[in-house]
Amino acid sequence: MTTTDLWDRYRSHLCIVEALDLRVDVSRMHFPAGFMDRMATPMAHAFDAMATLEKGAIANPDEDRMVGHYWLRAPELAPRPALSSAIIETRERIADFARDVHAGTIRPQRADRFEHVLVIGIGGSALGPQFVADALATRDDPMRAHFFDNTDPDGMARVIARLGEALERTLTVVISKSGGTAETRNGMLFARRAYERAGLDFARHAVAITGDGSDLDRTASASGWLERFPMWDWVGGRASVLAAVGLLPAALQGFDVDALLDGAREMDVATRRHEVASNPAALLALMWHHAGDGRGTKDMVVLPYADRLLLFSRYLQQLVMESLGKERDLDGNVVHQGMSVYGNKGSTDQHAYVQQLRDGVNNFFVTFIHVLHDGDGDPLEVEPDVRIGDYLTGFLLGTRAALFDADRESITITVPDVRERSIGALIALYERAVGLYATLVGVNAYDQPGVEAGKRAAGSVLELQKALLDALRADPAPRSAAELARAAGRPDHIEQSWTILEHLAANGRLERSGSGPDGARYRVS
Amino acid sequence: MTTTDLWDRYRSHLCIVEALDLRVDVSRMHFPAGFMDRMATPMAHAFDAMATLEKGAIANPDEDRMVGHYWLRAPELAPRPALSSAIIETRERIADFARDVHAGTIRPQRADRFEHVLVIGIGGSALGPQFVADALATRDDPMRAHFFDNTDPDGMARVIARLGEALERTLTVVISKSGGTAETRNGMLFARRAYERAGLDFARHAVAITGDGSDLDRTASASGWLERFPMWDWVGGRASVLAAVGLLPAALQGFDVDALLDGAREMDVATRRHEVASNPAALLALMWHHAGDGRGTKDMVVLPYADRLLLFSRYLQQLVMESLGKERDLDGNVVHQGMSVYGNKGSTDQHAYVQQLRDGVNNFFVTFIHVLHDGDGDPLEVEPDVRIGDYLTGFLLGTRAALFDADRESITITVPDVRERSIGALIALYERAVGLYATLVGVNAYDQPGVEAGKRAAGSVLELQKALLDALRADPAPRSAAELARAAGRPDHIEQSWTILEHLAANGRLERSGSGPDGARYRVS
Repeated sequence: MTTTDLWDRYRSHLCIVEALDLRVDVSRMHFPAGFMDRMATPMAHAFDAMATLEKGAIANPDEDRMVGHYWLRAPELAPRPALSSAIIETRERIADFARDVHAGTIRPQRADRFEHVLVIGIGGSALGPQFVADALATRDDPMRAHFFDNTDPDGMARVIARLGEALERTLTVVISKSGGTAETRNGMLFARRAYERAGLDFARHAVAITGDGSDLDRTASASGWLERFPMWDWVGGRASVLAAVGLLPAALQGFDVDALLDGAREMDVATRRHEVASNPAALLALMWHHAGDGRGTKDMVVLPYADRLLLFSRYLQQLVMESLGKERDLDGNVVHQGMSVYGNKGSTDQHAYVQQLRDGVNNFFVTFIHVLHDGDGDPLEVEPDVRIGDYLTGFLLGTRAALFDADRESITITVPDVRERSIGALIALYERAVGLYATLVGVNAYDQPGVEAGKRAAGSVLELQKALLDALRADPAPRSAAELARAAGRPDHIEQSWTILEHLAANGRLERSGSGPDGARYRVS
Repeated sequence: MTTTDLWDRYRSHLCIVEALDLRVDVSRMHFPAGFMDRMATPMAHAFDAMATLEKGAIANPDEDRMVGHYWLRAPELAPRPALSSAIIETRERIADFARDVHAGTIRPQRADRFEHVLVIGIGGSALGPQFVADALATRDDPMRAHFFDNTDPDGMARVIARLGEALERTLTVVISKSGGTAETRNGMLFARRAYERAGLDFARHAVAITGDGSDLDRTASASGWLERFPMWDWVGGRASVLAAVGLLPAALQGFDVDALLDGAREMDVATRRHEVASNPAALLALMWHHAGDGRGTKDMVVLPYADRLLLFSRYLQQLVMESLGKERDLDGNVVHQGMSVYGNKGSTDQHAYVQQLRDGVNNFFVTFIHVLHDGDGDPLEVEPDVRIGDYLTGFLLGTRAALFDADRESITITVPDVRERSIGALIALYERAVGLYATLVGVNAYDQPGVEAGKRAAGSVLELQKALLDALRADPAPRSAAELARAAGRPDHIEQSWTILEHLAANGRLERSGSGPDGARYRVS
């Protein structure tokens, strides 16, 4: 293909969302002639399914739930007035709360003003807020965000140590829909102890975002936390970044929440169009289908050329993989669907693995994200007529060309800047693309049945630990993992017992003599 | 397989490196009976190739270079006394320099002591130092690390803004082997401007790590920078974390550099063993070969259950993908080898994409990393006999079991803690595994011929930009991208011209009227 042919292909397929100054270019995907026509009927079906979902149908059949994240930025579309009012009222309460916190009307126990926000959450309760915080933070924000997003006590201790005396000026936001997420509960207990050790009343520094009536909701209510905000069962965790989960931290950091929502709303308008050529989400969904043959055979490598978009791929890992990675289709057939996502940022990742992308195994397609605005700083010319940011554009175009020359496919998304409207637009673009693609391949994008098995198994590990500790206390003689598994009534779980015992011994909770799975003997100190 | 059978399989294959208290478990990989025997001859060949490499042969034939990163922690193995002395002398100079900086003997222009280190580098000159910094940093370190790892002016401005007045207590380390890496040169110029604007002499705050005689070396020498440390042509960028590239930032942050090296040295001893069962690197290489059929058909998902190991997978992306992702094998046959790497940390990633791993497309194997020690903080019991860190172990074992039940493969590496020795050991483990695997599949692990094409193409984009700006200045009439491409003498590059013009317009360097690839007209302001 000559560069002139390419230019024609580029122009004819370029999708521009004028209201957002956002563009999607699929000219470097090798979809064959006739592909768009062939996909017209499945795509029409996907549009219909999406329209039905937006009207409030039970779009998540496994959990018997509506799927309403599109209403968050267009409350008038919610199928019941009570839902519309709940959305509007929550937005207003968030704005009021953030204003009062910034003004010092809502203030910490021992200081004038909250200057930090510690968000405790995991999965959808952390990835969206982390992405937005990293994308939009500036030095002049009224509050700075920190996160507990795991159940690693060392990680929590490090965050608390970094806060240091600023803990007394830190507002903690605990986020869990069910209120029963173990990692988040543990983080909350760790934070509470830190406040107490600093002589502070945790309740006077705490806010909950949770489902109505959950354990967390009751705790927050009974202990008199500063405020509670809702998580609704019709908003999935991975789509909650534009609900209170994402909006409250964003508002506290001083970001323009209305612009975030507005960007998403505009993108929703664009992605409701039934003409594929002018619908950027439909184009993405079709390109994913083409690239991975509708079976996820290619990885999605996400390369934004902007430091502020570093966490976008981590956010997308959940949105894409948890939505699409399903054992069965909607008819119950075993399909093992999905699409793997990775990537950090360009040009940095060029120096890490473009070697493989260009020369190695061709098991991916790239999504480049080009940011037109170089940021508000004073530009630096490093050569005549060349500024530092020109190199970002140069490397993006250069890598895109080098991959194309080597027969590697890529999509390029162009956004005007990394500000609230563009972030809202990117979020909404991928939410819709995932929803449309899920219909194309026939899976439920809104459940996650596969995550329970690991949690249940983890629970049984903790039960086994308790049984082992009881058995150890009952008899002070040194015993092997096999003997202790037997004594704990779990003779078939020697391997897990050995790992648990090694972990306990490494933390000074047992004495160990000997070593190795057969040689080690354990007793309580 | 019953749990008893599994326990037997676990015990019989468990590889323990006693000196490091490190274990590799491959029992959850479904390699068939006879696999180890079948691979014995190719593995023996890989051991031989590695021994030849360690003796100083030209192991990187494309670049006619020795591959000497194993000598960095065992200088007595270097094939020439001059190399041994260079390694030992550089280590001593690093230790002396860090001691003098900490003592304030080497001090900034306008303050008593350096308290921050700004590392400017990309690829191998950033990923290792970033991984080590994030893994080992504590609040009590004498210096805190910051990074420029890209050519994004907005990202650089953010780092400088965060430093604020602390810039006067910041030592900048510029790392580039060739001294000509554009991103790093740009970062250096940006940092220099920031110092100058603060009324500071950059040279009095700057150190170079670079090849002898490079542009950067000459600049640093001519401008009287504080110090210069070497990068040798026999240490590849992606293996330079235990050369000055990684050791100087580590020493400045107060990490135990000797323990880092010692951990790597011990691992080298263990991974030189010719008995596969007791060689953890050989086991990893064989499992990768089994999983991906020697063709990289499975992605490597790296899940350390520890916040401090979050950046390990980013580090491994370069080490694994740049080493293995090759078009041709050593005989010149087109093979398109490689292995994709992604992952962040557990249990966090469980809430992002374990849904897909368990139920979805089976295109991966997991490497769990279990850290036995929960950290030095005061433990918190959240239920009787259950501490916060027990949940990490529980989730790891639970997810491992749930994946195994769903026929998904995994390796588990256990390390005693996240301290210097263990970090050095992990680095050396993967360096050796990548080297052995490369021989198994017949590729050169030490070159990166595919990265030049993108850089060259980027250079031509910047040339095109200059030509467009010249053409714009020559005629004030508004013109289209097509017209300007012609006027710039590049009529075949309309598409790149349009993207460049849009980028220039978005940053106020051109005036644009109209919109779209055909409609937009540009002129200089």
